[in-house]
Amino acid sequence: MSNTKGYAAYSPTEEIKPFEFDRREVGPKDVKIEIDYCGVCHSDIHTAHNDWGMSMYPIVPGHEIVGRVTQIGSDVTNHKVGDLVAVGCMVDSCRECASCKDDLEQFCMNGMVMTYGSPDAVMGGVTHGGYSTQIVVNDYFVLKVSDKLDVKAVAPLLCAGITTYSPLMHWKVGPGQKVGVIGLGGLGHMGVKFAAAMGADVVMITTSPEKGADAKRLGANDVIVSKDADQMAAHAGTFDFLLNTVPVGHDINPYLPLLKNDRTMVLVGATPVDLHSMGLIFGRKNVAGSLIGGIKETQEMLDFCAEHNIVSDIEMINMQEINEAWDRVMKSDVKYRFVIDMKSLKSN
Amino acid sequence: MSNTKGYAAYSPTEEIKPFEFDRREVGPKDVKIEIDYCGVCHSDIHTAHNDWGMSMYPIVPGHEIVGRVTQIGSDVTNHKVGDLVAVGCMVDSCRECASCKDDLEQFCMNGMVMTYGSPDAVMGGVTHGGYSTQIVVNDYFVLKVSDKLDVKAVAPLLCAGITTYSPLMHWKVGPGQKVGVIGLGGLGHMGVKFAAAMGADVVMITTSPEKGADAKRLGANDVIVSKDADQMAAHAGTFDFLLNTVPVGHDINPYLPLLKNDRTMVLVGATPVDLHSMGLIFGRKNVAGSLIGGIKETQEMLDFCAEHNIVSDIEMINMQEINEAWDRVMKSDVKYRFVIDMKSLKSN
Repeated sequence: MSNTKGYAAYSPTEEIKPFEFDRREVGPKDVKIEIDYCGVCHSDIHTAHNDWGMSMYPIVPGHEIVGRVTQIGSDVTNHKVGDLVAVGCMVDSCRECASCKDDLEQFCMNGMVMTYGSPDAVMGGVTHGGYSTQIVVNDYFVLKVSDKLDVKAVAPLLCAGITTYSPLMHWKVGPGQKVGVIGLGGLGHMGVKFAAAMGADVVMITTSPEKGADAKRLGANDVIVSKDADQMAAHAGTFDFLLNTVPVGHDINPYLPLLKNDRTMVLVGATPVDLHSMGLIFGRKNVAGSLIGGIKETQEMLDFCAEHNIVSDIEMINMQEINEAWDRVMKSDVKYRFVIDMKSLKSN
Repeated sequence: MSNTKGYAAYSPTEEIKPFEFDRREVGPKDVKIEIDYCGVCHSDIHTAHNDWGMSMYPIVPGHEIVGRVTQIGSDVTNHKVGDLVAVGCMVDSCRECASCKDDLEQFCMNGMVMTYGSPDAVMGGVTHGGYSTQIVVNDYFVLKVSDKLDVKAVAPLLCAGITTYSPLMHWKVGPGQKVGVIGLGGLGHMGVKFAAAMGADVVMITTSPEKGADAKRLGANDVIVSKDADQMAAHAGTFDFLLNTVPVGHDINPYLPLLKNDRTMVLVGATPVDLHSMGLIFGRKNVAGSLIGGIKETQEMLDFCAEHNIVSDIEMINMQEINEAWDRVMKSDVKYRFVIDMKSLKSN
């Protein structure tokens, strides 16, 4: 075991604060990673605040982790000490069920082990995430990161990145297609970058006209203000795919007429939505969901980013500034993702 | 023009009653049909009662029409006098838009002309449907019916039949697949027959345990009572496809865990539904809609029925019994479709 510094939530209402805990011994198939950067995801806050009613305290959040390998187990052959690596939302799964065999560990039928907040079979309690100085992870769940990229801005790719990349790839977005990204936040800004890199004609669909210029800078060719019924009507029946990144409950019916026949809108936010089947029945349209991506696809996403020089737009903070950063995330006041510089905690 | 006897709704609240009106002259591409049988669809009642807020009176309902050709226009080559034919929910479309060119006239971008209640370009007012002695229809929208089938029980195939056949075909239901049909009414009983004929392992999913025996008679191998959480849990993650025929607003979330990863539930009822994206996100699942079918596919459905000896389970009524029949439809008290014997009106 090794003593680890971190920041933890102790209750749904208090600010998060320093926490010391032990990481497990490095087993034969384990990789120990010194964490350099960790992205701040809205899920961190939902979990700390127990918004989903399943939280067990103390919780060390963080599932957008980038760092260097400091130790490997005796049976590890795919990583070596000094490698630049990353860990996302999962640290283990059964590897034997139909989902795992399909490279969809996020749908493991025996339950994926999430990076934080899942029962920890070795240490007891729950797993602890990336708001900490180090982590020990099964080698299969450790991803390789190219040195070519701006490393600190890679961190958000591990959740915001794969969450948007996976549906765009699964539904085969590419050249000749008109693709709408609904909502411009941490997920939406990655969706625009990826869809543009895949060669699609990207349109930002937003309630906030003032976000238009930034959407175009990120790669959108056009902007629709969704509250403007005339603009929405002018684009009716023209979209090949819609990526809906809105993270809160909303009415999805106004977006459905934008789709061509037989096309799909994918929801990546975990939220109730208003739906009338009429919008699906006319045009045989689909509403689907998508959750991060499997480990194989997450590695492909990181490789795609290296090839296309894609990273997240970030604001760097020190660990000690986390509570203020969370307040700003809750107000959508970040372009587009906070990343914690973990040196601030190591030297603390 | 030719004088036609029918039954019409004159207001959202009154009973429907006798109505005399003129059918248009038979144009060069028109087919005149003496109507023998017309099925009673719940949409007839919704339209008569103005439940969708778009009704223009008087309305002659009926879009499940079977009869004999009595006259053809000079340019008609695909039908001849004496042929047994059928007309479904559409009597015209633009035939030039992308949807029409894809054989999806039901999604005509210029608006399909519905068999009743659509603006009538020739006669003014709105089109009048099959609760009548005769109809004049563009030849492309007239379908061929095999003499091998029980003709009166063919009528409901034109709406209840195609509405369930089309999604089962589009989503490629077949042998080796476990297919759930949700709801056992006019649509659901056809869904069970078709899915079984396509070779699937069919499961009826119903709120009414007493419907189980009938579902098995129709072709289901198993029955799940959807209110029984244990039964639902026992089937979690096992279905390749769900055909949801529930015609009223309901919570679709409990059904989503039944699907395997990447599979689809199709809604054919026009209704609001409760949906939380969580049920789609875990397992990358889909909710889609489907509306009747195009003319080419409707003919394929009728040919499939002739090949597999499939018709609807019906109760015959005379035209004069229609108001009582509607009352029973609204109470779901029919197994499974009323068909009007139009001789009762012709001789009246």
